[in-house]
Amino acid sequence: MWIAVKTEQNQSPNPYEQREKEAEFIKTRMGKIKHKIAVISGKGGVGKSLVSVNLAVGLAMNGRVDEVAILDADLTGPCVPKMLGLKGKRLDVSPAGMFPVTADVGVKVVSMDFLLPTEDSPVIWRGPLKMSAIRQFLANVAWGPLEFLLIDLPPGTGDEGLSILQLLPEMDGVVIVTIPSEVSQSVVKKAITFARKMNVPIFGIVENMSGMVCPHCGEVVDVFSRGGGRKVADEMGVEFLGSIPLDPRVSADSDEGVPFIKKHPDSPASQAFMRVVEKIEKKVEERC
Amino acid sequence: MWIAVKTEQNQSPNPYEQREKEAEFIKTRMGKIKHKIAVISGKGGVGKSLVSVNLAVGLAMNGRVDEVAILDADLTGPCVPKMLGLKGKRLDVSPAGMFPVTADVGVKVVSMDFLLPTEDSPVIWRGPLKMSAIRQFLANVAWGPLEFLLIDLPPGTGDEGLSILQLLPEMDGVVIVTIPSEVSQSVVKKAITFARKMNVPIFGIVENMSGMVCPHCGEVVDVFSRGGGRKVADEMGVEFLGSIPLDPRVSADSDEGVPFIKKHPDSPASQAFMRVVEKIEKKVEERC
Repeated sequence: MWIAVKTEQNQSPNPYEQREKEAEFIKTRMGKIKHKIAVISGKGGVGKSLVSVNLAVGLAMNGRVDEVAILDADLTGPCVPKMLGLKGKRLDVSPAGMFPVTADVGVKVVSMDFLLPTEDSPVIWRGPLKMSAIRQFLANVAWGPLEFLLIDLPPGTGDEGLSILQLLPEMDGVVIVTIPSEVSQSVVKKAITFARKMNVPIFGIVENMSGMVCPHCGEVVDVFSRGGGRKVADEMGVEFLGSIPLDPRVSADSDEGVPFIKKHPDSPASQAFMRVVEKIEKKVEERC
Repeated sequence: MWIAVKTEQNQSPNPYEQREKEAEFIKTRMGKIKHKIAVISGKGGVGKSLVSVNLAVGLAMNGRVDEVAILDADLTGPCVPKMLGLKGKRLDVSPAGMFPVTADVGVKVVSMDFLLPTEDSPVIWRGPLKMSAIRQFLANVAWGPLEFLLIDLPPGTGDEGLSILQLLPEMDGVVIVTIPSEVSQSVVKKAITFARKMNVPIFGIVENMSGMVCPHCGEVVDVFSRGGGRKVADEMGVEFLGSIPLDPRVSADSDEGVPFIKKHPDSPASQAFMRVVEKIEKKVEERC
């Protein structure tokens, strides 16, 4: 078995005491948040951050302005700030803790991106360092009163996911994001097995990029095949939360930093997001 | 600074000697491979594995059958076997080493997927364990004579990428894959900075999913915005290797396990792949 050991400073005061103190901080901080939901995917690039952002904005639009937050835990490729028009913002750090940045739409955000020196800086971090960053976010961010915290985990079943699920055993549930193609589904099965091993309730699967209506002729194009999300949900005995159609305006809006669900509320994709939001609201109510 | 320490076994024989022996093995094995190219992306899901597979098949089609290989180093979400119709295959392991699986198209493959017990098994591994797996792949796979080894790295600037680039300082170059949207570009810049920090030559940027021709009306739809790849190449002073148009048949072919470039050689996407292949051939010749 491998363990992580901190050199130099690990003799300082008492590392075990420090770690316990941190765990207590995390418990206190997280105890103030009503519902904690992890958004995961097996494969990258299926639109996990996009789904997190639009679900968060949808939850805020349903009467929870400033009571919804996103923890962008994808430390190596944080995209959430850009999608919410928060590029270049900085976390407010004081002895009382770190304070999230609030987007116009009433969603609070904490992201590694707010701590990086320049836009081009990569976070070249070994696993144990990443874990330590996530622990610090969980222990030290002063979120204020929150109804929902969505945790946007990096793809795969690596370090970040492990740390957060281990640190937050009282997670309400996970939402799994996928795209319709079969190549993605074998990775999704891995993600489901992973969540089950961690004993976290699975809310269900959202299929993103699910067929596109051609803006020129109105016909549907299955850009990334068809039906893989529902198929894997059935096979693994997990609820299917819905399909989000692919809309070229989603990518354009993300580039502009405006959440799609806010800018195009009447589009089929936004309505599909809202149906997932309502299913999540129902699920957390049932758990109370 | 954090370091990784192996408990229990790390007292056994002599860990430093063992590590040195492994490094020697890696040097010998890798020395037999003419060209080593890493395929990286900042963001996940931009089609990095798809690009790796089609470039490898393109290199094989250009007179190198059985002399091209892919190391699928995305340990948490290995997709290459599925795309080459090798799902369910197993690595042949003997005292002489591990032997790659060869696809019909004349491309050899090594992937964590060949070692996992079931399709659903996630690789829930901490960073140091992953590094150890990659080291073992590099030291112990008996590739046979190879012209090209493409190393399909996981997205981000995390452990796998770090290990491989550190272990293979004589890498010919890296190919960076992105999609046209701006949200992806900030992550691509991080990847470029990362490769530069590691002193690895950058061959250039491939823009994947670059505009789709609607199969119903023939009009072009910019599904993921437009032109981001060339823009970031210009901004960062990196060569632009080409755009691969989005074709719904690519996803369908991948699901079937048939490389697109082989099945639809006359399509614009395949021709675009071939132009990138030729640029890579020229680049490695220039380096000789």
